[in-house]
Amino acid sequence: MARHFSLSGFPEWLPEQRLVEQHVLTTLQRTFELHGFSGIETRAVEPVSQLLSKGETSKEIYLLSRLQAEAGGDDAELGLHFDLTVPLARYVVENAGRLLFPFKRYQIQKVWRGERPQDGRFREFVQADVDVVGQDTLSQHHDMELPLVMVDALGRLPIPRVVVRASNRKVAQGLYEAVGIADVDGALRAIDKLDKIGEKAVAEMLIAGGATEQQAEQALALARIQGSDGSIADRVLALGARSDLLDEGLHELVALIEGANALMPGAITADLKIARGLDYYTGTVYESTMIGHEDLGSVCSGGRYDSLATDGKKTYPGVGLSIGVSRVLARVLGAPLVEVSRSVPTAVLVAVLDEDHRAQSDRIAMSLRDRGIPTEVSPSAAKFGKQIRYADRRGIPYVWFPGDPDSVKDIRSGDQTDADAGEWMPPADDLHPTVRTVS
Amino acid sequence: MARHFSLSGFPEWLPEQRLVEQHVLTTLQRTFELHGFSGIETRAVEPVSQLLSKGETSKEIYLLSRLQAEAGGDDAELGLHFDLTVPLARYVVENAGRLLFPFKRYQIQKVWRGERPQDGRFREFVQADVDVVGQDTLSQHHDMELPLVMVDALGRLPIPRVVVRASNRKVAQGLYEAVGIADVDGALRAIDKLDKIGEKAVAEMLIAGGATEQQAEQALALARIQGSDGSIADRVLALGARSDLLDEGLHELVALIEGANALMPGAITADLKIARGLDYYTGTVYESTMIGHEDLGSVCSGGRYDSLATDGKKTYPGVGLSIGVSRVLARVLGAPLVEVSRSVPTAVLVAVLDEDHRAQSDRIAMSLRDRGIPTEVSPSAAKFGKQIRYADRRGIPYVWFPGDPDSVKDIRSGDQTDADAGEWMPPADDLHPTVRTVS
Repeated sequence: MARHFSLSGFPEWLPEQRLVEQHVLTTLQRTFELHGFSGIETRAVEPVSQLLSKGETSKEIYLLSRLQAEAGGDDAELGLHFDLTVPLARYVVENAGRLLFPFKRYQIQKVWRGERPQDGRFREFVQADVDVVGQDTLSQHHDMELPLVMVDALGRLPIPRVVVRASNRKVAQGLYEAVGIADVDGALRAIDKLDKIGEKAVAEMLIAGGATEQQAEQALALARIQGSDGSIADRVLALGARSDLLDEGLHELVALIEGANALMPGAITADLKIARGLDYYTGTVYESTMIGHEDLGSVCSGGRYDSLATDGKKTYPGVGLSIGVSRVLARVLGAPLVEVSRSVPTAVLVAVLDEDHRAQSDRIAMSLRDRGIPTEVSPSAAKFGKQIRYADRRGIPYVWFPGDPDSVKDIRSGDQTDADAGEWMPPADDLHPTVRTVS
Repeated sequence: MARHFSLSGFPEWLPEQRLVEQHVLTTLQRTFELHGFSGIETRAVEPVSQLLSKGETSKEIYLLSRLQAEAGGDDAELGLHFDLTVPLARYVVENAGRLLFPFKRYQIQKVWRGERPQDGRFREFVQADVDVVGQDTLSQHHDMELPLVMVDALGRLPIPRVVVRASNRKVAQGLYEAVGIADVDGALRAIDKLDKIGEKAVAEMLIAGGATEQQAEQALALARIQGSDGSIADRVLALGARSDLLDEGLHELVALIEGANALMPGAITADLKIARGLDYYTGTVYESTMIGHEDLGSVCSGGRYDSLATDGKKTYPGVGLSIGVSRVLARVLGAPLVEVSRSVPTAVLVAVLDEDHRAQSDRIAMSLRDRGIPTEVSPSAAKFGKQIRYADRRGIPYVWFPGDPDSVKDIRSGDQTDADAGEWMPPADDLHPTVRTVS
């Protein structure tokens, strides 16, 4: 099902592919709601000043202009949002008096990044975010809750298993400061490139940034630590550096890893090389890889941000993760890793005897739909063989023949039985298209 | 629930309002699927050349530019789509070899129009479209099918009744040509303004456009005809003009009205003053008003377009309608015409005895969620009275107390009973938030 998109970077799916996307989006939505998260949408645009104030993706914004804008008009300069976190921060501050805190929200929307066309990256894609935002304070246990919501959600999708890996900025920052690395942000950015460019190149970056060889080695030693229990703290402390910040970060990270694995064994691993490029994270950070598809990079990422949103008087600390739905979906559809039982929602095609009797078929269809059965009426009153072929090409499992009595044919088995449109029901599995993983 | 939006023309809803929007969108989606329509999404952007080639809204496009675009780069000039019909035409031509015809699709997406900020119109809003597109030919019975899909969908929403009114361009064009009106498009545009500016001003427009007083009166006489059966044809013919095109249009219109009202009495009325501003319509045209809210204008409009899409060799005639979801929703939420049973998806809040026992509450929540019950764990281990207040403020109906045995309290009635998280279920009405019309 892999395909080329007519406008580079702007994916579009065929109807049967969109069925898979809808299945994914509905599953995510239902899971987020099962965890008590409220759905919101924010407008697609933000003032450019707002977009430019946050993070590194500010270079890849699409600006908007009105074709008929008057010179010197009063339009604020607007751009398309490039993530759903910056809009959330703005929405929370703007509506603080009308929201209840901690505010748990999910948001599934398209975002846009003005990538260079030749880079082959998506320029329009769907993200699915969950965040919880507090007013002034936000308990640490949410740092465990949020990735577990995502593990639950991802586990319900027809995709390979996803493992969430976590680290904590305070650990890296605490250690860097304790060993004397001056440019902490620069060091985090260098470590963030570890999977892409390797240890040697990262060490060179660190040294070019002012670190000594020994400091670079200490940063790399920290980045090598992975594990699923409290022993990671011992290994970090064995590097020999101590600071209050480092201790605080380790305490948070161990509580997260041990708590999460007690509830859902194997769900979350500590991985100290995770840094995350966006500079608004202040504590826990998350990345996730789909097993067997590590080349995709992180499919679900996020972190804790204690000061992203503020109205000057109050601050709104939050923690959340974001699934790159389009990235996952492109792989799932491209391989393909899934198949869908039919290409249309229709369960029953009602045949038409001749155009003078179309209304009879319309009434049968209305009766079936009244009981929740997706039904089409044949668009032509051609020979029955041709009407059956219409159903067959779309994977519609049943064809209904008006008569006295009516009859319904399962065109897969050929079985045909008398039926009453006010009573007949297809088996539950045939009612809607189903999505299955390809084994 | 009415509110001011922080960026003029860009509506955003509070979480409880978004529950209403989600209810509306899900109801539309399910109804469209019940009728066998496939959901698709198209990218938000189209080449500006494509957008400018269609219809009158071309003046209100948002253009995109990349913040970091290189001078002389190879970027195509892009704009945000202003409707879902132009993108459908492009999608159909582009994917013709991979689609099955007639292609029935629904599409629910945001669209953008670069209106002047001071006009108070929406600049970002949601449309819900259904269309059927044929390859080279498309049977006339679809002109009746499509508005009935919309009548079914609108009838399931918590809104006042919507009446679809239909006309046919061939009738107006046929009559204008027969009586000698030279500028048919200009006359259609003038008649389209009838509800806004009245008969006298329209007559002046027609005469200014070259019509005689008698021709203007004939156009207005046609526009006065309304009805729900074949008698409208007699009244049109009584105006004295005849032409093949007029006869063809009348035949199509009467078949639509009589067929639709036989299946769903009162669903569709003929109203010969409907002209529709967009110039790609070639036959049937539709508008709809919500009873008691005629000031909103048409909330669901569309028509037949025999030549919107073509790849040079084949043409793709279609017919469809579009609901202005945001327009309807703003009224429904603003009045308000609906109420929602609670502000969050959560049915059960699991209380926390103290932070050391949070995992116990987490496990109860997992067990309830496993059986489809939306559940939150109290964010704080405050006194139970405070935890109950957390639920109460959000409208969460049940609070669960871990114990031996556990117990669950309906905080509306105060009833508390012993319960097992592996077995207990709330009444079906309490499982999810429900939306009701305010009486």
